[in-house]
Amino acid sequence: MKIYDISMSISENMQVYKNKEEKKPVFSVTRDFKTGNSFETNIKMDMHTGTHIDAPLHMIRDGATIDKVRLDKFISKCKVLDFTNVEDCITKSNLEKKCIEENEFLLLKTRNSFKDCFDYNFVYLEKEAAQYLKEKKVKGVGIDALGIERNQKGHPTHKILLSSGIIIIEGLRLKNIEEGKYIIIALPLKFVGVEASPVRAILIKDM
Amino acid sequence: MKIYDISMSISENMQVYKNKEEKKPVFSVTRDFKTGNSFETNIKMDMHTGTHIDAPLHMIRDGATIDKVRLDKFISKCKVLDFTNVEDCITKSNLEKKCIEENEFLLLKTRNSFKDCFDYNFVYLEKEAAQYLKEKKVKGVGIDALGIERNQKGHPTHKILLSSGIIIIEGLRLKNIEEGKYIIIALPLKFVGVEASPVRAILIKDM
Ligand SMILES: [Zn+2]
Ligand SMILES: [Zn+2]
Repeated sequence: MKIYDISMSISENMQVYKNKEEKKPVFSVTRDFKTGNSFETNIKMDMHTGTHIDAPLHMIRDGATIDKVRLDKFISKCKVLDFTNVEDCITKSNLEKKCIEENEFLLLKTRNSFKDCFDYNFVYLEKEAAQYLKEKKVKGVGIDALGIERNQKGHPTHKILLSSGIIIIEGLRLKNIEEGKYIIIALPLKFVGVEASPVRAILIKDM
Repeated sequence: MKIYDISMSISENMQVYKNKEEKKPVFSVTRDFKTGNSFETNIKMDMHTGTHIDAPLHMIRDGATIDKVRLDKFISKCKVLDFTNVEDCITKSNLEKKCIEENEFLLLKTRNSFKDCFDYNFVYLEKEAAQYLKEKKVKGVGIDALGIERNQKGHPTHKILLSSGIIIIEGLRLKNIEEGKYIIIALPLKFVGVEASPVRAILIKDM
């Protein structure tokens, strides 16, 4: 069994969406070996920190919260698609060139995976492409940017996917992953009533 | 494939260690559909909130941080052992009655799994029992209390396990899990430089 870690490291100097100060995680050491005999830390962080899952509530009024999504969505057969040559956004026509099967989790590998700083022009998933994936009945879509769309008015890509029960993972790191089939594991923390969760996302080959 | 969720829900009124106020997670909604067109939350939480993994640094000076532990420790064959009849602590003699194999992740099911409030007299793992598990070369040990020991001076159970590279999971919920063999998945978030991480822990049967 080979395990590939496709998660961002979470640290105070990591990239955050649009470089917003309030989105940076803050760690506080509450006890250490200078003052006691154990080490303890807490964290303040946004639910959309690093590699994370968006649940429907993120963009849909009264949408499902992260604790209400079935766990089998997060352990799935999966396909990584290579779009590292795409400049601006992944279109329906880009997707049509690939073999996409029903009930598969798709991960979109782009030039984003090679950037450690936030790129305001990150490659995103265009709304017609999202509509195409909805028709293909995929289980989930992951991308290697901190957003699956940029400044699209009304957030159509998010809404098409989330209203169809298609899970979104953002913030993947796919630099070292080749196009092909894997098993993905990306379980959210069991936060009650919220719209998203950071995850440790991994791919497995030859389980 | 059957998935069993063995994680605590994370909410503001959940049980925390010794009911300490500063250990309760605090959620803040930073945007909602009243003020915008999306829902966003952040959280302040202790790394030992709910179901979580302790890395060596928690109790061992200069011990490994959570991001340095190999990922194959967190995806493992696993055995749930039923100790629901134990009153005070799990001893070496309790363990000797069970079949324990090398490189297995052991989960200790006790009466703790049936308590939703913090129990100051939670069932813990006695230090001679920890030494026995070290000799058995188990991969990890999980328990259904927020600590694997109570107020044992010098934290011998933690230190015996963590100094031997044996992973500790605390805060499991095993009420509905029968004794037997499973696969456990319990991946920490990729926090850099800290001693622990909350996890979503699951068991899988018939993968
Ligand atoms: Zn998001
Ligand atoms: Zn702990």
